[in-house]
Parts: sequence; structure tokens; C-alpha cells
Amino acid sequence: MGKNRLEAFSDGVIAILITIMVLELKVPQGVTLASLAPVLPVFLSYVLSFVYLGIYWNNHHHMLHACGRVTGSILWANLHLLFWLSLIPFTTAWMGENHFAALPSALYGAVLLMAGIAYYLLQQQIIASQGTDSLLRRAVGTDWKGKSSPIVYLAAIPIAFVSPALAQALYVAVALVWLVPDRRIERVLGSGEA
Amino acid sequence: MGKNRLEAFSDGVIAILITIMVLELKVPQGVTLASLAPVLPVFLSYVLSFVYLGIYWNNHHHMLHACGRVTGSILWANLHLLFWLSLIPFTTAWMGENHFAALPSALYGAVLLMAGIAYYLLQQQIIASQGTDSLLRRAVGTDWKGKSSPIVYLAAIPIAFVSPALAQALYVAVALVWLVPDRRIERVLGSGEA
Amino acid sequence: MGKNRLEAFSDGVIAILITIMVLELKVPQGVTLASLAPVLPVFLSYVLSFVYLGIYWNNHHHMLHACGRVTGSILWANLHLLFWLSLIPFTTAWMGENHFAALPSALYGAVLLMAGIAYYLLQQQIIASQGTDSLLRRAVGTDWKGKSSPIVYLAAIPIAFVSPALAQALYVAVALVWLVPDRRIERVLGSGEA
Amino acid sequence: MGKNRLEAFSDGVIAILITIMVLELKVPQGVTLASLAPVLPVFLSYVLSFVYLGIYWNNHHHMLHACGRVTGSILWANLHLLFWLSLIPFTTAWMGENHFAALPSALYGAVLLMAGIAYYLLQQQIIASQGTDSLLRRAVGTDWKGKSSPIVYLAAIPIAFVSPALAQALYVAVALVWLVPDRRIERVLGSGEA
Repeated sequence: MGKNRLEAFSDGVIAILITIMVLELKVPQGVTLASLAPVLPVFLSYVLSFVYLGIYWNNHHHMLHACGRVTGSILWANLHLLFWLSLIPFTTAWMGENHFAALPSALYGAVLLMAGIAYYLLQQQIIASQGTDSLLRRAVGTDWKGKSSPIVYLAAIPIAFVSPALAQALYVAVALVWLVPDRRIERVLGSGEA
Repeated sequence: MGKNRLEAFSDGVIAILITIMVLELKVPQGVTLASLAPVLPVFLSYVLSFVYLGIYWNNHHHMLHACGRVTGSILWANLHLLFWLSLIPFTTAWMGENHFAALPSALYGAVLLMAGIAYYLLQQQIIASQGTDSLLRRAVGTDWKGKSSPIVYLAAIPIAFVSPALAQALYVAVALVWLVPDRRIERVLGSGEA
Repeated sequence: MGKNRLEAFSDGVIAILITIMVLELKVPQGVTLASLAPVLPVFLSYVLSFVYLGIYWNNHHHMLHACGRVTGSILWANLHLLFWLSLIPFTTAWMGENHFAALPSALYGAVLLMAGIAYYLLQQQIIASQGTDSLLRRAVGTDWKGKSSPIVYLAAIPIAFVSPALAQALYVAVALVWLVPDRRIERVLGSGEA
Repeated sequence: MGKNRLEAFSDGVIAILITIMVLELKVPQGVTLASLAPVLPVFLSYVLSFVYLGIYWNNHHHMLHACGRVTGSILWANLHLLFWLSLIPFTTAWMGENHFAALPSALYGAVLLMAGIAYYLLQQQIIASQGTDSLLRRAVGTDWKGKSSPIVYLAAIPIAFVSPALAQALYVAVALVWLVPDRRIERVLGSGEA
């Protein structure tokens, strides 16, 4: 079974998730700068989630590039990832509309944690389908980013109840680390073709 | 006529249906755990419908894989299926926001029933277009899952008025049965290629 | 320039239009049959518009199949068609929520009229790009459906102010005529390939 | 890495942006012409933004046609463009619902300015990836449209506070200039193939 439709479906879901978050930017009643103020925290949380969904799309793109055959398990591991990503607009809006309060910030981290775990499970399914000489296994190597991100999210959840600002800083930090595209896969794929 | 555009269109509609259900997860007013409570039943109904739409996407994927030429009848049978699937976000929200009350639970089952029938009609159209030596006919075999699911939905509709919880349990049970991907088609396709 | 991206973009827009109409099916407050009653006219107008958008997608599919090269004029003629189609969810909701009142029914027809004209202009652009031996020109032939539909819509607009029900009947009648897929193009393409 | 998925994802986002703007056309309460009146300015701003998003889709289409390999930098430059485009539904609705008031009109121009800059940066990334003999560099030539549009937007922002109508006129003028498709790339690509 080809992977084109899996890619197209995932792209569709992520594209829609990115754009429906915009619907949470409620049109202000007035036409003054002050009337824009309540939109600002929602806007900031939108920027953060846009970057996260962009990272997931980007890395998903790379990971599937190293995937040959799509099995039933990969299909469901992919849907599982999309499920957690689909909750991001909800947690983004709750966090933004409540000025990054403790519980919404913690739930935002919990959904990121579950998405990170789902991404890892999908990666393992693809590696398992490729057997012992897995191209993807060599490509991800020690996978320190994939393994450390969930730990940071896990830490951010209790931290959010002490200092929501620190939890936000951790979410931003992880995003910045991931913004560097996953050149490992590009490199291994390049050497594989060479 | 190629089937790529049919697949892409169906994927697009299903991807959008899955994600607009998220819009029914209304952002709570407060920031306490108690304020999250009203979201819980809507969330649970979202999970159930996410799984159902995932199953339809997955099986649709397999079924079209066993389909060669797309006729006008197949196009319309496919749109007919998408029509019933498009009502799932509505019935999901009605059921979730009313804590799985009797009538919404029955209507949820009625839409699942119509979608199941539409899926069956689409399958028959594809088989008819393939003639006596239909690959898909051999692939689906006795098709006990496709034939028994509508019967369960049909039973769940009156049951919902007696015990909505039992109707829900039936919906969950059918979903679990379908979660096993349709290996029949994979197998027959595999042997066909061999 | 290839036509794949034009098809994919049009499919995306039509898929989204079909599904955002579902958002107008507002979740009822109660859980009784009576609470479902206000949804019924919106549902009926949804069915009509679903069929119309399905017809456009279907015929668009066929028409682009007979189109080779995509020019800038074709791109814009296609966007012009998508613009009028994009207004269908608005007119559908206005008509449905107001129980098929006169002015909303007339506006519904006006948007169908403009979409029909836009479809005709797109067809002419494709024919013009193909020169004197246009495959599409031969395929559409006298194009009695394409030419008579706008006349029916044009008649339905004033009729809606006298009898909205008659205007609706005309919209349904045109939809039924178009439900028969455009076999002309299939036939000419088939003979062209033979 | 192929560019198909980049194109498909961008098409998906732009298709969704175009269609969710329709959701801002709020269904009027009454059924008279007067009840339609408040929709008119929102409709006019919708038309303007539809044309802008159509222009971006069109030119994006052409630009990626002249792009061979997709690098990580191109992926992120593309997401950066999509981010600014994703704000257009918000600024469109704010401007339309407030009858083209000063601040919303200025913000509308600011988002167009950022989108224009993001488009330019994406173009530069693609040119940089192609080296000294860049096909795209030759295709865009002096790029007077790409360079002058941001200047007009920049001028329109302060002008909006003096005369919102003049700012609108500038937005319309730039859109009209861009409506002419980018034949430069078509020409250079054509000669390159010859």
C-alpha cells in the first residue's frame, strides 16, 4: 500500500488544524487599539501552536520520507498522532483566552506530551516495519530530541501550577530546539542514495 | 477516469469532518477542573466519532485500492457515503452536549446505520463495475463485519430509548471490531500480485 | 503548467464548502423530537446544496479531464467559479433558517445563476485554449443543460417572490437533471482514445 | 525531497483560509433587503481578500514551478508566508464588520505588508538554493511588482488613519496590478524548455 494517501490525509488534517485556530481570534467589538488587547494573548498562543504544528508537519514529512511500506499499524499510529494534534486548537484557545493561567497551561503541556509520545510510537512502528536494517532507525540515531522533549513537557505540567510563565518558557524552548529541521534523516537518506 | 481525485476528495472531506468536530469542544469559561467537566461528555463522544471516521477512512482506503475504474455510479455512491458521514459532527455534538440522552443517542446510531448502508452500496457498485471476476468481491468474502454492523446499529436505536448506556456500549463494540484493519483485501491483493 | 494542482485546489475548496455547511446545523437545546424541528428546514436546504456542490465537483472533474494545458485565464476563470460556489453555504443557511422565505430563496437562485455562468465561462476558456479542434467543444456538443440551467435560475428569482415553493421546485428539478453524470465527455474521450 | 507535499499543504491551507472567511458572512436575522445591509461591507472585504488569496495561490503556483529541490529553509520560509496569510480572515472580518474604519484598515495593510515580505523571503530562499544560474532569478527579473507592493502597503498604513477609503483604493489597485498572472516565469520556463 502506498504512502501518498497517508501523507495527503495527514497534511489535510494538519492544514485544517492550523487554520481553524484562527477562528479563535475573535473579531474585537471596537476599532481602537484597546479593543485589540484581549486578542493579544490568544494571538501569542496561536503563534506558539502554529510553530508546533509546523514542526510536526515538517518532521512528519521527513519521517515518512524514510518510510517505505504503510501497514495497518502505521495507519493507526498515525491516526493516534493526529488525534492528539487535533486537541491543540482547544488547549490553545483555553490557554490564550485565560491569559496563560495555571491549569490551561498544564493541559497544553499534557496534550504536547501525548502528541510527543504518539509521534515516538509512530516512529517505532515504522522502524519495526523496516526490520533490522531500518533506514529510519539509523536516521534518528540516539534521537535525543525525540526522547528529551516529553521529559520537558512532563516537567512543565507541575511547574505550570507554580509558575505558568516558566512552563510557557519551556514550551517555547522545546519549539526552538525543534525548529532546526531534522537533518539527520536528510543526511542518512542522502548517504543511502549515494 | 482515474480514482486519484476521488480518493483525494474523500480524504479532504473526512479530514475536515474529523477536525470540525473539535470546534464543538467549547472553550470553558473558567480555569478550574470543575469548568472542564461539561467538556468531558463532548470529548468522549468526540473520541468515539474520531475512531469511527478513522475506521471509515482506513477501510475506504483499502476498498478503493481494490477498485480500478471509477464510473459515474461509483462517484455518486461515494458522495452518498460522504453525505451520511458529514452528519456525524452534528449527531456527535448533540449527543455529547446532552450527556448521551436517549433521542440523541438513537439519532447517532441512525446516522451510523445510514453510513454503513452507504458504504455497502459503494462496495456493491465497485464490485458490479468489476464484473464476474471482481477482485473486491473475493476480497470482502462473506463480509460478516459489513453485514452485521448495520444490524447492531438497527438494534441500538430502540435500545437507546430503554438504556442509552447499552446503545453506547454497542457503538463502542462495533468500533472495536472494525479497529482491526481489513486484512482480507490486503491478503487477496497480495495473492493477486503474487 | 500541469492541471493537478488546479484540480487539487478546487477539490479542497469544494470539500471544505460541503463540510462547513454542516456547521449551520445548530445543535438543538433540548433532547426531544420537537427540539429537532427547527433543524429540519436547514437540513433540507443542506441536502439540496450538498447535491449541487456534488454536481459541480463531478462535472468539474469531467471537464478538467478534457483539458490539457492550464493557462492563466483558466486559473482565474476557475477561481471565479469557486468564488460563487463559496457563497452557497451563506445562501443555504439564510434560506434554511428562514423556512424558504421569498428573498433568501431568490438570492439562493441568484448565486446558482452566477455559479452557472462562471462554469460556462470556465468551459469557454478551456475550449478557447484548445483551438479549433477542441476536444471539450465536441464533448459538450449543444450543451443544452449548461445553457438551459441559467435560464431556469433566472426565471426562479422573480418566481420566488410569488411562490417560494415553486422556486424551490425549480432548483430541485435542475439538480435532478444534472444528477445524470456528463456522459458526453466520457463518450467523446472514449472515442478519442479509440 | 520532493515539492509535491509542500504544494499540497500550501494549497490546503489557502483553500481553507478562503473558505473560512465565508463563515464571517453572518446569516442575517430578517428576510428583507434591509437585513442584508450589514452583510454588505463584510462581503466587500471578503471579495478583496478572496482576490488577494487567489493571487497568492496563483503566484505561489508559478514560483514553485520554477523550484527544484525543497530545503529545510524553504519549508520554513513557506510556513512563515502561510502564517501571515492565515491572519487575513481575522483582519478581513474586523475591517468588514467595522465598515472599513481606520485602525482595522491599517492592520489589514500591515498583514498584507508582512505577507508580501514573507513572499519575497521565500522567493529569495528558492533563488539561493538554485545557485548562481537560478532559473527563478532570471524569471522574476527586476521584480518591480514584488518590490513596489510592500512600499504601497507601507504607505497605506498611515494613510488609513487620514482616509480609510484611500487606503482601500490602494489595496484594490495593488490587487488589480497582480491580477495579471506572472507571465515572466511562464516565459522563462518556456524558453528554458525550448
